[in-house]
Formats: sequence, C-alpha cells, structure tokens
Amino acid sequence: MTVDNGVNVQALLEAREVLKGAPEAAQFVWRASSKWDNGVHSTTKVEKFFGLGQEQSHKSETVFAADHPEVFAAEDNGITPIEYLLVGLAGCLTAGVASVAQNRGIQLRSVEATVEGEHDIRGILGADSDVRNGFNGIKVVFNVDADATKEEIEALVAQSQKRSAVFDALTNPTDVTVEVA
Amino acid sequence: MTVDNGVNVQALLEAREVLKGAPEAAQFVWRASSKWDNGVHSTTKVEKFFGLGQEQSHKSETVFAADHPEVFAAEDNGITPIEYLLVGLAGCLTAGVASVAQNRGIQLRSVEATVEGEHDIRGILGADSDVRNGFNGIKVVFNVDADATKEEIEALVAQSQKRSAVFDALTNPTDVTVEVA
Repeated sequence: MTVDNGVNVQALLEAREVLKGAPEAAQFVWRASSKWDNGVHSTTKVEKFFGLGQEQSHKSETVFAADHPEVFAAEDNGITPIEYLLVGLAGCLTAGVASVAQNRGIQLRSVEATVEGEHDIRGILGADSDVRNGFNGIKVVFNVDADATKEEIEALVAQSQKRSAVFDALTNPTDVTVEVA
Repeated sequence: MTVDNGVNVQALLEAREVLKGAPEAAQFVWRASSKWDNGVHSTTKVEKFFGLGQEQSHKSETVFAADHPEVFAAEDNGITPIEYLLVGLAGCLTAGVASVAQNRGIQLRSVEATVEGEHDIRGILGADSDVRNGFNGIKVVFNVDADATKEEIEALVAQSQKRSAVFDALTNPTDVTVEVA
C-alpha cells in the first residue's frame, strides 16, 4: 500500500539539500499589517512574504479580527490576541505530525488536537506584579488514528514538536523590537 | 473634549481591584481545537474558554485554516502557522495602545502596525542544527495618529508592550506540554 498523507516529502528533502548550499535563500520574512478599529478591536491582514530570495505571496489575502470578550468589557468582534498563539501552535504541530508520518511511511486516518493555555489575567491587569502577562503554561493533547502503534504515534508527535517553528517560538525567547515610525 | 477610544477603562480598573482579592477568578483557560485536513492543511476552531470561575463563550465560533505556501510544495489553503503569532502580536499591542491611551486621556485617530518576523527555514527543514526552528527576530513598527506628542505616543507604545500578553509569550519561555491521548 502506498502511504499518502498529502505531504510532498520528496520536495522538502530536496529543498533541505538545496538550502544547505544556499543559506541566503532560506531567509524568510513573514508579515502582518494591522489597523485599529475601535476599543480593543483591530483587523490584521496577511498576504505577502519574502523567501527564496524574492517577494512571495499567498494565493489570497486573509483578514483576521482580534478583540476582547464581553467579560473584559469589550465587544468580542474577534478572538482574543493570545488565542491566535494557540491556533498557530495547533496548526504547526499538526502539519509536523503529517509530514513526519509521511516520511516514516505511516498512513494517517485522522489527527485531532486540543490546545489549552492557562492565563492568570492579574498580570495584564496590573493586579499583581509577580504574575506574568502571558500564559502560565500550555497543554496540547493529540488524538491520532493511524496505521501505527501507540509508541510510533508518540514518536511522530515528539518529532513534530522537535521541528516545530511555533513550539520553538513559544518555549524559547524571541527578540521582539517595537518602534514608532 | 471627552476622550473616547472605545475602551471601558473604568471597568478594567474595577476588575483589577476585584481580582486582587479573588485570584481564583483571574485564572483563565483559552482553548483551540484542530483537525487535520490533508497534507499540512488543518482547521482550528476557537469558541469556548474558562474564566471568572466558570465556562465562558465567545459570541460565535471562529474557524481558522493553516497550511504551507506553494513554495513549500503545499497548497496554501490558509496562512502558515507561524504567521498566526504575528497576527496575535499585532492585535495585542494595538489593544494595549488603545487601552493605555484611554487611561491617559489621549484621543486616538488611527493606529496602524506592521509586523515582520525573520525566519531562517533551515531550522525546520533540518538543514542546519545550529539554526533555531522559530523566528530569528520580530520587528513591529507603529504609525499612530493621535492628539499627543511623539514622546507621548512612544510612551503609549512602550506601556502597551509592558502589559502585553502576546509580547510576553514571545519574548519569554512558556512551558508547553504535548501529549498523545
């Protein structure tokens, strides 16, 4: 039986070899641009990025709303900004599971994940300076149905985590500079 | 002139005082649930969360697609997972600017931000073990039109950063556990 999870692993392995000899082509820049609407409601658009030495574009622009929920005395016109981190984490780890499964010849039938981020909001409210602003911890639980043993599935998830851009971005510090034009 | 940026600062200040004496109510849990579609394409839904001691819900469920772009040999059915981190950062810092401006009596006319995340993809491809998987750095540039001096606007943005959940989550490590059910 041919394993097909829809991931072109051959292309990725070739890209790895090409980029080993062309590190400048591996330098990507991802971009988002946002506009304030009113209150804590804003709209962010994602379309263009840079990579492989030139400007690139998604097939289309995607528009995202961010707001705070009504329990924060806001209008809930979109999800809370910090929830976007959970969306990114779920997507990244799931993509990794599919890619690693393809590379290891494991046919996936279904992959589901639930992500929970614990957040003590006393930090952002300035109610307690010992409480951090961000998550106190994040827990991801995968349910994977595949032609594989439990151990093989656990190894898939572990390898996905090891190669995940978003997992790294959340578990290790990134330098973020914020300027006024 | 009454300053109105649409942020109910009074409610937030009251919440701060209430939560100082009721830390258990300040414990929020944000949630996302994802399903693999095919390849590196997945769909993530956000609706419910926990806070103020009980189950809460956004007004409606929001659905997000994540995929990789065509230059990664994928189908570009949605933005790349790591781009969701930039969406969250833009939304969080913008909400902060509006909130701090309201608290300081500064009327905003417009707030725009561009966010760029530098990403050396040799990390995720496994082409160079010295390259991290996540962003090498993130740069945010704000354009703010407000009844305020440049210094006051810079102070708004600095205070937003200081209180930002997403800024903290990206610049400091978070404990993330990943399990198979």
